[in-house]
Amino acid sequence: MINCPIPISQYPQVLLAHGGGGRLMHQLLEELFGRAFANPMLDLRHDAAVFEPPPGPLAFTTDSYVVRPLFFPGGDIGSLAVHGTVNDLAMAGARPLWLSAAFILEEGLPMETLWRVVCSMQEAARRCGVHIVTGDTKVVDKGKGDGLFINTAGVGVLEQALRPGPGHVRPGDAVLLSGDLGRHGMAIMAAREGLQFESAIESDSAPVHEPVLALLRAGLEVHCLRDLTRGGLAAALNEIAQTARVRIAVEQTAIAVREDVHAACELLGLDPLHVANEGRFVAFVPEAQAQAALATLRTHPVSAGAARIGRVVEHGEPLVTLKSAIGASRILDMPSGEQLPRIC
Amino acid sequence: MINCPIPISQYPQVLLAHGGGGRLMHQLLEELFGRAFANPMLDLRHDAAVFEPPPGPLAFTTDSYVVRPLFFPGGDIGSLAVHGTVNDLAMAGARPLWLSAAFILEEGLPMETLWRVVCSMQEAARRCGVHIVTGDTKVVDKGKGDGLFINTAGVGVLEQALRPGPGHVRPGDAVLLSGDLGRHGMAIMAAREGLQFESAIESDSAPVHEPVLALLRAGLEVHCLRDLTRGGLAAALNEIAQTARVRIAVEQTAIAVREDVHAACELLGLDPLHVANEGRFVAFVPEAQAQAALATLRTHPVSAGAARIGRVVEHGEPLVTLKSAIGASRILDMPSGEQLPRIC
Repeated sequence: MINCPIPISQYPQVLLAHGGGGRLMHQLLEELFGRAFANPMLDLRHDAAVFEPPPGPLAFTTDSYVVRPLFFPGGDIGSLAVHGTVNDLAMAGARPLWLSAAFILEEGLPMETLWRVVCSMQEAARRCGVHIVTGDTKVVDKGKGDGLFINTAGVGVLEQALRPGPGHVRPGDAVLLSGDLGRHGMAIMAAREGLQFESAIESDSAPVHEPVLALLRAGLEVHCLRDLTRGGLAAALNEIAQTARVRIAVEQTAIAVREDVHAACELLGLDPLHVANEGRFVAFVPEAQAQAALATLRTHPVSAGAARIGRVVEHGEPLVTLKSAIGASRILDMPSGEQLPRIC
Repeated sequence: MINCPIPISQYPQVLLAHGGGGRLMHQLLEELFGRAFANPMLDLRHDAAVFEPPPGPLAFTTDSYVVRPLFFPGGDIGSLAVHGTVNDLAMAGARPLWLSAAFILEEGLPMETLWRVVCSMQEAARRCGVHIVTGDTKVVDKGKGDGLFINTAGVGVLEQALRPGPGHVRPGDAVLLSGDLGRHGMAIMAAREGLQFESAIESDSAPVHEPVLALLRAGLEVHCLRDLTRGGLAAALNEIAQTARVRIAVEQTAIAVREDVHAACELLGLDPLHVANEGRFVAFVPEAQAQAALATLRTHPVSAGAARIGRVVEHGEPLVTLKSAIGASRILDMPSGEQLPRIC
């Protein structure tokens, strides 16, 4: 990371005037964002980026990021804002191409903090092969924000005819999970609450478009993809069950949760299946293709721990059931939603 | 406006759990946003919207909206969030097609307020002929936001070969202004400071894509378009002068400012040329096409007051000059940016 291009001695903190449309804002856009995100398509000097899309349907998505704290083991709000939107595009079966980046800064935010976040975004975008092509900056008065919120929207292209979506899920589908659960949520909680474990739990924040595109390029019939962010595996499976109107049965023993994550969840009274992840997804494929899909997923480090965790049983009243290690089956309900505010 | 579909008696305010990924968030997405924005392409049930773009280059833009107060004479944060992004697409010469809508809600925001804003967004989108196709909702704890921030990103299509941009501005261009200046900024200031005038100053917030597309469809050689938001006319002209490396000369007598806006600016010590607008733009066209362009602009109500306000004089050190009513010329500088926080 090079030094912040805005002279910190002169502007140690973000001022309201940095959002006012005048000289200071101009300097911030040109020198800080322009320097960090520099790429031929970036058009900070006009109101929109213009590009020729490759052939194929496009996917379009948006997410705002309000995670607290801004920096946590395994990531920060900047890399998260890139991975999250890249992953949402991947879940639609799209190859991520272009991102926008919009910042809501709180007056008083250290300029150095903004620079660190922006550098992290650019590094994450580079690793994902996407370009940040347009942006916006607003400043709100002190006490009316919380340091820094980021919105990224993304555009990607579908290169296969397949359009994975919850409406395509059907009985006989196998449910594949790309890796262990609960690390992002517990990394955030540990950082926020100052919890000490033997070793720090690192967020699983990571882009997952590579294994997803590998599945599609292999010609596998991927019916649905869903990343396991807010509400975790439980929310994702319940949402899919409701849209597809199916019953899904999963097995607890097939679902990997690291021991330290498990212990942290127990301590805080949380269910790891409700906890958010930022580099995990489920894929629904026909049972006959499950082994081929797992083999493909396991060739990518981010989904090396992929496993078959269950199946779609039948059409009917939407329901997700979980079979425990001792063989008892219980309903895996949608979380009520109070546990973990501001994890993404 | 129909009644809020979330039972106000049960949930009078937004709770942290409305952003938690569980049942309450699901209800908010399905019943409030899903109801208001209902359209065939909206995909609240998956991570991204997918569509077939029409032929042509695409424009992509984003803006966050943090205006205070949320409701003001002539508009609100919802309609502003649609008009602003529609206008940014138009300034790239694009026909606006699809918007995303991402909300950062502060815990405690009245549910009724959210519903009013969302209905206003949908109504503005309908009038602009665009669809809100994807979205996101986050909730931050009380005291860490300011009621409601909105981000919209937009995608549009360029239907003409022309790609207007500041790099195309050249000596001999006429500078056209689409109407009177200063109303949005002064409407916000009056509402915020409780100023009373004989009649309320209404924001000029409005979509301007129709007159812009009319210019392009008429085959006029539009070199550059720029809407006059933060920093007003002064910032827009200075930015363009810097990018194109030209000297621009404008005449004060050609620039319309309503008498009440002028009086309000005097009272607050503001220059109307620095004040933000949300339905005004400048167009740079070859002098020989200025009359035809003005005639086209004047057929649209939003730009009925269009006028030729100046010209691009020569290449060289970037500079904008303003000739006053008595014939004296002065430099029209970039505003420093402290005057008007959170007007958009």
